[in-house]
Amino acid sequence: MLEIIEKVETKIPCLGPAKIDSPLLTRRSDIFRHFIEEDEQVLVNITQPHVNEQIKNKRPLLAFELAGPRRKIYFDPTKLKCGIVTCGGLCPGINDVIRALVMELYHVYGVKTIYGFKYGLEGFIPKYGNELVELVPARVANIHELGGTVLGTSRGPQEIEEIVDTLDRLNIGILFMIGGDGTLRAAAKISDEVLRRGLKCSVIAIPKTIDNDIHLVEKSFGFDTAVEKATEAIRAAHTEAIAAYNGIGLVKLMGRFSGFIAAYATLGLREVNFTLIPEVDFDLEGESGLLEVLRRRLESRRHAVIVVAEGAGQKFFADQDLGTDPSGNPRLGDIGKFLVEKIKGYFASIKMPITLKYIDPSYIIRSLPANANDHIYCGFLAQNAVHAGMAGKTAMLVSCWHNIYVHIPIKMAVTKRKTIDPNSSLWFSVLETTGQPSLKN
Amino acid sequence: MLEIIEKVETKIPCLGPAKIDSPLLTRRSDIFRHFIEEDEQVLVNITQPHVNEQIKNKRPLLAFELAGPRRKIYFDPTKLKCGIVTCGGLCPGINDVIRALVMELYHVYGVKTIYGFKYGLEGFIPKYGNELVELVPARVANIHELGGTVLGTSRGPQEIEEIVDTLDRLNIGILFMIGGDGTLRAAAKISDEVLRRGLKCSVIAIPKTIDNDIHLVEKSFGFDTAVEKATEAIRAAHTEAIAAYNGIGLVKLMGRFSGFIAAYATLGLREVNFTLIPEVDFDLEGESGLLEVLRRRLESRRHAVIVVAEGAGQKFFADQDLGTDPSGNPRLGDIGKFLVEKIKGYFASIKMPITLKYIDPSYIIRSLPANANDHIYCGFLAQNAVHAGMAGKTAMLVSCWHNIYVHIPIKMAVTKRKTIDPNSSLWFSVLETTGQPSLKN
Amino acid sequence: MLEIIEKVETKIPCLGPAKIDSPLLTRRSDIFRHFIEEDEQVLVNITQPHVNEQIKNKRPLLAFELAGPRRKIYFDPTKLKCGIVTCGGLCPGINDVIRALVMELYHVYGVKTIYGFKYGLEGFIPKYGNELVELVPARVANIHELGGTVLGTSRGPQEIEEIVDTLDRLNIGILFMIGGDGTLRAAAKISDEVLRRGLKCSVIAIPKTIDNDIHLVEKSFGFDTAVEKATEAIRAAHTEAIAAYNGIGLVKLMGRFSGFIAAYATLGLREVNFTLIPEVDFDLEGESGLLEVLRRRLESRRHAVIVVAEGAGQKFFADQDLGTDPSGNPRLGDIGKFLVEKIKGYFASIKMPITLKYIDPSYIIRSLPANANDHIYCGFLAQNAVHAGMAGKTAMLVSCWHNIYVHIPIKMAVTKRKTIDPNSSLWFSVLETTGQPSLKN
Amino acid sequence: MLEIIEKVETKIPCLGPAKIDSPLLTRRSDIFRHFIEEDEQVLVNITQPHVNEQIKNKRPLLAFELAGPRRKIYFDPTKLKCGIVTCGGLCPGINDVIRALVMELYHVYGVKTIYGFKYGLEGFIPKYGNELVELVPARVANIHELGGTVLGTSRGPQEIEEIVDTLDRLNIGILFMIGGDGTLRAAAKISDEVLRRGLKCSVIAIPKTIDNDIHLVEKSFGFDTAVEKATEAIRAAHTEAIAAYNGIGLVKLMGRFSGFIAAYATLGLREVNFTLIPEVDFDLEGESGLLEVLRRRLESRRHAVIVVAEGAGQKFFADQDLGTDPSGNPRLGDIGKFLVEKIKGYFASIKMPITLKYIDPSYIIRSLPANANDHIYCGFLAQNAVHAGMAGKTAMLVSCWHNIYVHIPIKMAVTKRKTIDPNSSLWFSVLETTGQPSLKN
Repeated sequence: MLEIIEKVETKIPCLGPAKIDSPLLTRRSDIFRHFIEEDEQVLVNITQPHVNEQIKNKRPLLAFELAGPRRKIYFDPTKLKCGIVTCGGLCPGINDVIRALVMELYHVYGVKTIYGFKYGLEGFIPKYGNELVELVPARVANIHELGGTVLGTSRGPQEIEEIVDTLDRLNIGILFMIGGDGTLRAAAKISDEVLRRGLKCSVIAIPKTIDNDIHLVEKSFGFDTAVEKATEAIRAAHTEAIAAYNGIGLVKLMGRFSGFIAAYATLGLREVNFTLIPEVDFDLEGESGLLEVLRRRLESRRHAVIVVAEGAGQKFFADQDLGTDPSGNPRLGDIGKFLVEKIKGYFASIKMPITLKYIDPSYIIRSLPANANDHIYCGFLAQNAVHAGMAGKTAMLVSCWHNIYVHIPIKMAVTKRKTIDPNSSLWFSVLETTGQPSLKN
Repeated sequence: MLEIIEKVETKIPCLGPAKIDSPLLTRRSDIFRHFIEEDEQVLVNITQPHVNEQIKNKRPLLAFELAGPRRKIYFDPTKLKCGIVTCGGLCPGINDVIRALVMELYHVYGVKTIYGFKYGLEGFIPKYGNELVELVPARVANIHELGGTVLGTSRGPQEIEEIVDTLDRLNIGILFMIGGDGTLRAAAKISDEVLRRGLKCSVIAIPKTIDNDIHLVEKSFGFDTAVEKATEAIRAAHTEAIAAYNGIGLVKLMGRFSGFIAAYATLGLREVNFTLIPEVDFDLEGESGLLEVLRRRLESRRHAVIVVAEGAGQKFFADQDLGTDPSGNPRLGDIGKFLVEKIKGYFASIKMPITLKYIDPSYIIRSLPANANDHIYCGFLAQNAVHAGMAGKTAMLVSCWHNIYVHIPIKMAVTKRKTIDPNSSLWFSVLETTGQPSLKN
Repeated sequence: MLEIIEKVETKIPCLGPAKIDSPLLTRRSDIFRHFIEEDEQVLVNITQPHVNEQIKNKRPLLAFELAGPRRKIYFDPTKLKCGIVTCGGLCPGINDVIRALVMELYHVYGVKTIYGFKYGLEGFIPKYGNELVELVPARVANIHELGGTVLGTSRGPQEIEEIVDTLDRLNIGILFMIGGDGTLRAAAKISDEVLRRGLKCSVIAIPKTIDNDIHLVEKSFGFDTAVEKATEAIRAAHTEAIAAYNGIGLVKLMGRFSGFIAAYATLGLREVNFTLIPEVDFDLEGESGLLEVLRRRLESRRHAVIVVAEGAGQKFFADQDLGTDPSGNPRLGDIGKFLVEKIKGYFASIKMPITLKYIDPSYIIRSLPANANDHIYCGFLAQNAVHAGMAGKTAMLVSCWHNIYVHIPIKMAVTKRKTIDPNSSLWFSVLETTGQPSLKN
Repeated sequence: MLEIIEKVETKIPCLGPAKIDSPLLTRRSDIFRHFIEEDEQVLVNITQPHVNEQIKNKRPLLAFELAGPRRKIYFDPTKLKCGIVTCGGLCPGINDVIRALVMELYHVYGVKTIYGFKYGLEGFIPKYGNELVELVPARVANIHELGGTVLGTSRGPQEIEEIVDTLDRLNIGILFMIGGDGTLRAAAKISDEVLRRGLKCSVIAIPKTIDNDIHLVEKSFGFDTAVEKATEAIRAAHTEAIAAYNGIGLVKLMGRFSGFIAAYATLGLREVNFTLIPEVDFDLEGESGLLEVLRRRLESRRHAVIVVAEGAGQKFFADQDLGTDPSGNPRLGDIGKFLVEKIKGYFASIKMPITLKYIDPSYIIRSLPANANDHIYCGFLAQNAVHAGMAGKTAMLVSCWHNIYVHIPIKMAVTKRKTIDPNSSLWFSVLETTGQPSLKN
């Protein structure tokens, strides 16, 4: 059952007509270079019977613009200044994206002035000191070996006016924004304000989310690396669990709204007995609740491994006002510690001895350098972001759709979050692997 | 420029009508399970303007059958016997596939008799002893932690008649064949002979090729793991190269007909200066030939890293009759050692001292256990292979197309090999990363 | 300044005279085998001027018995039954020790009956079910690939009387005990009780402590693996710290009484700015206290990495009664969380924004399989434990002293803990690497 | 049976009296620093009955000088210039040594001028261009993350006169030489020539040998890392071997004269059936020869793993004149390829089908960055080398003896190579693990 996406506007805004010959036309005469034509697109929905129904009903087939180099570009590379900023939490591959942006701009298009804004959106704001670094190939050549971001990052919004003032003052032609949901929203606002002021500044986002939860982004960069490492924590939990009589290993993984890391890590190391994600409700108490089912599991097998996404079970904190984090997201209740207490309390109350080990590997995972697969993926994302920006596209993000690189309007991507469909084969595979029942009374 | 695939027959043959209720319908009443309808399909070509032209010209849109569980199945699980065989060279993930086949058959469908044939197709042939192992969950529970194949493997064809005699004698209802191009051809013949004899035996292939070169298979399992490990050898070559004056690191990677591993590994660790693949011709001698270009590189940078796919430069062996290997493939000339000799000879002739280190990591790569990504992928491939077999489909392979699991007729997959298009953005990215010119005079 | 050890009794008790020809004498006639003579010993103190002073003063030179096979053994292997038990927390290499004990007993000495007691000392106690597993080579052949312990473990003492009753009832000739300080004390008591009852049961300990804190044990098994992995957490902390403005990465590592893991991990990845260990007192407040020094560090460098051993700074909990854990050790205050709160509170109070990331990788570290070095080390420890037991030695542990395998009386090893000497070159190297001042006012 | 070392001169030559107060005396007033006194030494032989016999016979107890900082030093740090050179093959940890030398000289002693000579001894010779790099902390801060050597290396001797001319011209006060046997011999000659000319230049060697074969060096840096990685190749060989009927995996490991890597890697992953080392002769033909024993192994188990050190079986090349390599060492016959041919030929001759996979991981191993253990070890070696050089010691190497850092006269270390004693418990453990018989007729 594949999701059908409807009623969207897939057109990408442009700053103006692209009239300049791309330097790629002449750059390497010995090698053929394919250019993307403006009518090249990828269908959004590609399954039958949907497509035939659309045709029968004479409805248009939705399609995304193909990413890639254009013959004609909007900006004159010799005069162009670009900016790069990284926002929000760490994720494997950010430095790969920075590196590939700089390499493509500098070597392929000949753009020589590239600024890195320090510490996320704070880097645009005078009161934080407005720190810039000039990015040249030598400076970024080896940064893909490092986790984190060499530009630094921060959370939370900043005044859009001030950001655009800075872009204007520095005469930035393309701003590349690497960030998650909040950053995409900021990018949309910046792009609106830029257009309102009549500035010639393209805003191109490279979506970053270790939770893999951005709508219309099939797989976010760093996700693969994160899943691989998350299985290590599960292995540790399993080793601890089987080493003790009634041993329980509990692992909290990232995933505020979507349980992708929890689900994929469960499939990546098949030793998990319970996977709890935000998309699927569960009870603690009662015959079918987690505690009782866990008890039965221990009695039959003497150990259990539980993986919980950080956003799972938020209903248990419904009566608490946790406020919001600097990014403006509502703060989550700490489901990991909550489960530790509830499980300990329950087994103490029934006088059943257990040994519970709790593992939270989040920072170890998100600070990793990218694995080879993510290195490659980040490289393509960044190259396509540069092609798009040079062509004068704006208010868009680069994404991979049906394995093909495309342009997606930011406003379309922020309409909702990508989550796990509890009726999907992905979730069903998780249930088969864990053997867990519905944990609802 | 995305390839357009035309004129193919995408219909999957069936052994007969599927009339039995799937055990999945009732197995887990607490959990919703989605079933695939027979009209669910994925378009083969998904880009514009192609699709619109087809519609305008009233030509049908090609589509592949969706993989997944069916409500009605062909085989009665309680009476069914299945066979599994692994053929050809090692590849990360084979044991994952075996494990997931057994788990899905046994736990989900309730098939209790599953034979593993030992040492590839030899396992069907009486003169080799016809060794079988009975596969049950306990026996395969941890094999995904191991590289290689617990069933053993061998190369080369065996008598189709004898294979089908064995299938008939053992009353095998579904034969799962894990193998590459040669195995797919054998599977097609076995399936033909089975149908000719009127046997009720489904033949389902799970395509295995570390070279990632099977037509209509977007990415073969194990490829990801292989690329990750291949970058290690490139790192070693780079370290050796920069440690010596005029140091050259030469790495031979797998890829008989297709340079995918060489290309992706080059993008996965951006320290390669020359990537040589079967799809792109190159000269050794002359102003633009590798030797002279290498000399210029050394003079300016004092070191160089070369990655060569094993099937590159076979024109240099055109005058030699190398015979065929046990699989019937023409033997390749050893381009790695050939380059070692040519490079050493050339620099000796011009009295330029060099230090050349040659690394061949093939067996270390192909014998690895799968990484998390490949673990997951193998699991889905195997589950879908079981769904297809249970539904009575035959002469097909499971694949991923536009990121969706599908059924592909074997005869369609063996019509040609998947290769790197020298005009693709993949190859262009390699050229940008290495900086290598066309090596043709 | 190397420590001088004095006034100890190094003699190992024996169950009786060893009169039986070792099976090693005749086992492999094609290969020469060296046997240890009873007068072979290793000096305890090996530095000048100490040794010469002893000689001058006609005092004896202390020495430990050499470990290794003896020509004559005490037990008849064909009649001997052995037991193995693993106690306390996990540590890389426990399964290696179990495996090597079984392999050496079974294959080399021909002992066919080896019992594994489940879940630590609980395995001897009838009320817990007294679960046994029979250990044969096939069962343990691959367990060294796994972390944890296949026998399970538990904490805390059990009735010595009951343990010896079980040994007596099962007619155990050699009991191999793998455990830490508490286990060593239990081993001493068991051995006393065994001798008191006149049983012929040898008690041989293989010291296990991930903290590396057992007196007279130069390096405990698993320590190497633990340090390697601990550097990963430090790398994560560093990546997080530099990615934020005034970023602080705080890592809590194991080390209740001794800071060896913290110190070695600091030297193993030289990105730590403050290393806090139990052996070296530090203040929080005041001009030289951690908080103020940390502030100065942030102001000059904008990030800091802190490593704290779990037993550091216990003075801050002096007013709290934390009770004891099941092993009877006093519970430690959670210095990690304490520092998180104190640091956050301090910087909030001075209105200096910081970003603090706290990482506790303990379970991920201790559940690892051994690295190659520890695999090898565990193998030698276990082989020497078997040689000692077969020779009728008892109340001893196997250790490595000046890189030579020796027998050490358990009572000698439990007289004190091994700790880091704050005047040693080890600690000085840590101070040089971190650049941290004395954190005392 | 521990080796007894006799009749050696352990005294370290000095350039002159050390009269200058060490900057360490005053550098960190808040921290206590221990200094080594000149009479502090470690016994060379530490086992009984040897030591007591020496005492009884009134013979002196041999001892090595302790390494570490002295109160008084010879060189004035503010005026001192130092040089560093790396020679011979790669080995994990070279960059760690370079880094720690620079850090200790610069930060601890205050030496500001440190030259790195490029490409080994060639860096001293005018005709090669005499390339120097100035080494400062910022330049070396992260090099320990990289394998290889940032200074480059080369093989082979150079004119001692020219080397000393360069030292004289540059006014080098301490030359740190990182290299193996050949480099130690060169260091001895350089030091002789320096003294002959009356120059004030100390020559301090840090012994480097991945083979771990330097006399009086208990374990050479990088060895641990090498063994760990070598087990990966063995795992690959084992996976390949068991995947084929009569599968043979053959791994060639480093070890020209000593089989330490082969032996330790065998113990580090217990899947090897034959370990062949230079120290233990073996036959190919005949009833007890490798080929016939291998045949019997295959007939009973259907697979076999062989590890061969590169220097094993050189008697098979006795009739060939292989010349010498640039370092002047006799070239070895390629035992790996020789065994491949002999094994294939033998089984072809007896018409027994086999599948042989040959793996040579040498360059992948030696180009690795150091693991944590080697990082730490390299740091201590380098710090002690600096202390020694600053004190005016010369013609010595730093080593670890009975786990204590010491000074060893170079001339003593080059008197012979360290090899595996075939009667040692190390070799016996290898034989027990592999189960291999004596392969001699």
